[in-house]
Amino acid sequence: MSKKLTSRAEDYSKWYNELVVKADLAENSAVRGCMVIKPYGYAIWEKMQAELDRMFKETGHQNAYFPLFVPKSLFEAEEKNAEGFAKECAVVTHYRLQNDPDKPGKLRVDPEAKLEEELVVRPTSEAIIWNTYRNWIQSYRDLPILVNQWANVVRWEMRTRLFLRTAEFLWQEGHTAHATKQEAIDETKQMNNVYANFVENFMAIPVIQGVKTESERFAGADETYCIEALMQDGKALQAGTSHFLGQNFAKAFDVKYANKEGKQDYVWATSWGVSTRLMGALIMTHSDDNGLVLPPNLAPYQVVIVPIYKNEEQFEAISKVAEDIISDLRERNISVKFDKRDTLRPGAKFAQHELQGVPLRIAVGPKDLEDGTVEVARRDTLTKQTVILDRINVVIEDLLEEIQKSLFDKALAYRNEHITKVDTFDEFKDVLENKGGFIAAHWDGTAETEEKIKEITKATIRCVPLGSAEESGSCVYSGAPSKGRVLFAKAY
Amino acid sequence: MSKKLTSRAEDYSKWYNELVVKADLAENSAVRGCMVIKPYGYAIWEKMQAELDRMFKETGHQNAYFPLFVPKSLFEAEEKNAEGFAKECAVVTHYRLQNDPDKPGKLRVDPEAKLEEELVVRPTSEAIIWNTYRNWIQSYRDLPILVNQWANVVRWEMRTRLFLRTAEFLWQEGHTAHATKQEAIDETKQMNNVYANFVENFMAIPVIQGVKTESERFAGADETYCIEALMQDGKALQAGTSHFLGQNFAKAFDVKYANKEGKQDYVWATSWGVSTRLMGALIMTHSDDNGLVLPPNLAPYQVVIVPIYKNEEQFEAISKVAEDIISDLRERNISVKFDKRDTLRPGAKFAQHELQGVPLRIAVGPKDLEDGTVEVARRDTLTKQTVILDRINVVIEDLLEEIQKSLFDKALAYRNEHITKVDTFDEFKDVLENKGGFIAAHWDGTAETEEKIKEITKATIRCVPLGSAEESGSCVYSGAPSKGRVLFAKAY
Repeated sequence: MSKKLTSRAEDYSKWYNELVVKADLAENSAVRGCMVIKPYGYAIWEKMQAELDRMFKETGHQNAYFPLFVPKSLFEAEEKNAEGFAKECAVVTHYRLQNDPDKPGKLRVDPEAKLEEELVVRPTSEAIIWNTYRNWIQSYRDLPILVNQWANVVRWEMRTRLFLRTAEFLWQEGHTAHATKQEAIDETKQMNNVYANFVENFMAIPVIQGVKTESERFAGADETYCIEALMQDGKALQAGTSHFLGQNFAKAFDVKYANKEGKQDYVWATSWGVSTRLMGALIMTHSDDNGLVLPPNLAPYQVVIVPIYKNEEQFEAISKVAEDIISDLRERNISVKFDKRDTLRPGAKFAQHELQGVPLRIAVGPKDLEDGTVEVARRDTLTKQTVILDRINVVIEDLLEEIQKSLFDKALAYRNEHITKVDTFDEFKDVLENKGGFIAAHWDGTAETEEKIKEITKATIRCVPLGSAEESGSCVYSGAPSKGRVLFAKAY
Repeated sequence: MSKKLTSRAEDYSKWYNELVVKADLAENSAVRGCMVIKPYGYAIWEKMQAELDRMFKETGHQNAYFPLFVPKSLFEAEEKNAEGFAKECAVVTHYRLQNDPDKPGKLRVDPEAKLEEELVVRPTSEAIIWNTYRNWIQSYRDLPILVNQWANVVRWEMRTRLFLRTAEFLWQEGHTAHATKQEAIDETKQMNNVYANFVENFMAIPVIQGVKTESERFAGADETYCIEALMQDGKALQAGTSHFLGQNFAKAFDVKYANKEGKQDYVWATSWGVSTRLMGALIMTHSDDNGLVLPPNLAPYQVVIVPIYKNEEQFEAISKVAEDIISDLRERNISVKFDKRDTLRPGAKFAQHELQGVPLRIAVGPKDLEDGTVEVARRDTLTKQTVILDRINVVIEDLLEEIQKSLFDKALAYRNEHITKVDTFDEFKDVLENKGGFIAAHWDGTAETEEKIKEITKATIRCVPLGSAEESGSCVYSGAPSKGRVLFAKAY
């Protein structure tokens, strides 16, 4: 298989698929719509998990684990939620296989082992968790409950794409219970902030915070907060959501608490999640035609050292230099790999590390040994510099910081250039077609208009941005009065 | 609900179940046989995961993630493996629910959404992984593959018990691929050693390493190594297994590699796993009639500080002392919680921390303030001592080390007292009935005898211990010649 990628200009979608596979991030499996996350891809996901987990714990949350299966009767209890997920859920109906009497060596479902009640493989865990919370909550003393779960979930999507939309995916889902409405709303906002902070500062991806319109809300939520990012092809990607669930699940599962005065009331709820979809956002924000570009915070190794030698003696000498660099960098908590494979030439190694987005490459050759230097190459800018060995630590440390910042700045500049205010529907269609990105336009607030615009243009309202100024105007489609602009875009 | 536990002497099994629930470790869910792992229990599991993950990485393994579902045709490919798991697997047959036309507000499986091929919810992942490895392996350069997966698996067990045997459980499963038989055998042994090391040094549970007899082997393995622990009721518990899979899966999934000479051969395999079952081993090794006893390495917090005060002024003064202790202990990487809840009296707090196994409790009252002392209580021995404030750091650090060691020594002494050599079947039955523990007896090496002994006594061969001396004798049941003793026990 050629290592050369299709260029983004040629076919963006093909470029993405090839990059995911060739950079060893993930691949399709024998199960329709389910992916295999390969070690290199999983190492990036682990870095995300570790940082998010730290942030969740810092804000007072604890992890727990709830069953994979949701009995049908619980699944259907919260009506809107059930309606939202029923069409795409995997259902377990039997608990045994047996030898197929008609086909020797083959198995079939044992018709005698039919479950009395079908089990839905969780597409999200509100139902099973709120059914559990009923027993955990008696009084205000038991609140708040601040729980997060790291888990796999299944949604039987018809059109799947690696990381972006898969039948099974990995995620975290926070599920909190509160005594008051205000506390639940504060939690919803707090977690959306945590997500924005993580995605911007750790993943170097700028996001816009906002709330979803009613038709784009999570099934069962009263309000959905979200963070929206912009990909290089001008399409938006929902990177995380945080839901204020009101008392909907408490009512569906009869979860009440006694307040300080002994009065019974339903509990208030939130849920919030991000998933392996973030891997897709990462790839499509920073990468280029040569492959993956990783922010240093997420790189499985931030620096790779490649020795260039013609004989064993040179290799030994270079190895000594490399070992010194490695121990110095590790002291500064910089992760580094010495690529001393003897089955590949330096050029092939360079190509692989470029494809896999290693932020910095250090090459050491015989000439460097003489001069007391090394060559340092940046993955993001593809620029090289010669560095005196004595200064290597400082230079590397500074460069990593600079790359992290520069990736964010670059993505932010692109994103900001791609927010376009439009006031007519012709302009709307023109910008969408020829420029892409977010379109800030007036909307009359009706689901009908939203649906019409989607039908005609495939653009949806990504969010009503938080803190946007009130501005009176008329709807870009219907001409009816509007109090402010919302953000439209085509989206993943 | 009373916090008081049934005593072990009264009803060991009831004691266990009550402890798991009352110490907030786990509880049964609405799904038959599936548990909810509560935050306190999950925090202990996270500590196990972190340490195991570190040990796996130190031995060169990387994490990855494979699909939850195994298509039936892959599931049945390795015949013995399929046979071993077919009788207890959850099967997904449909991918959609719809409104039930006969029952308004209810859902039913959509008969039109039947899968062409049924999907088995993974009971273990050899099949789906070896089907993937076929594409990853062409030549010896692609080997070894050293991969681990943290995941949930499902086995539809009929009799379930929290942590010990649940329909869904959490585990890690390592799956490695090697060019030579010897390398695969070395890996199998290495990982069994890693498990023994982890369980003994981190969990303070002594184990015996050995190999399973053919009838107790993992379905699809050529050899199963294991670590066996002994619980306080004299029953054994298999705490981890490491399997040498030979070329069985490589042949079933046609995974070949070209060696250095270009010759094609099947790849050699291992797999190894430990699960949330270890939580059961932890509980049943160390705990007592007052509740959980945790080795410091696994405690979500190692020290709890309880203030004893009569007014706000005293509370303020005690808080200052507590804050100083906390910051000093944290500097030494000792985790500590200040339990300043004003909804519980000190006695109730003491009881809760005892039930939850916090290794050390520090109580600070008005008299302590005057004397410059605190009271330190050990959970494992239930002993108390007065400690001068200046010495608290050193004392706590030493005590934690001592507790970790002492728990292991105590369990080891119990285990060693409960390995009994017997030479007659009457003695065998007598020891099993009246003393319990491991019985070291001669066995003729046949599956028939093994089965007979199991039928009569419910004891199974836990393992043929590694490195046991050759000793000729006659089988305790059949009288036929034997070359050495094996370990029998009743087991979880």
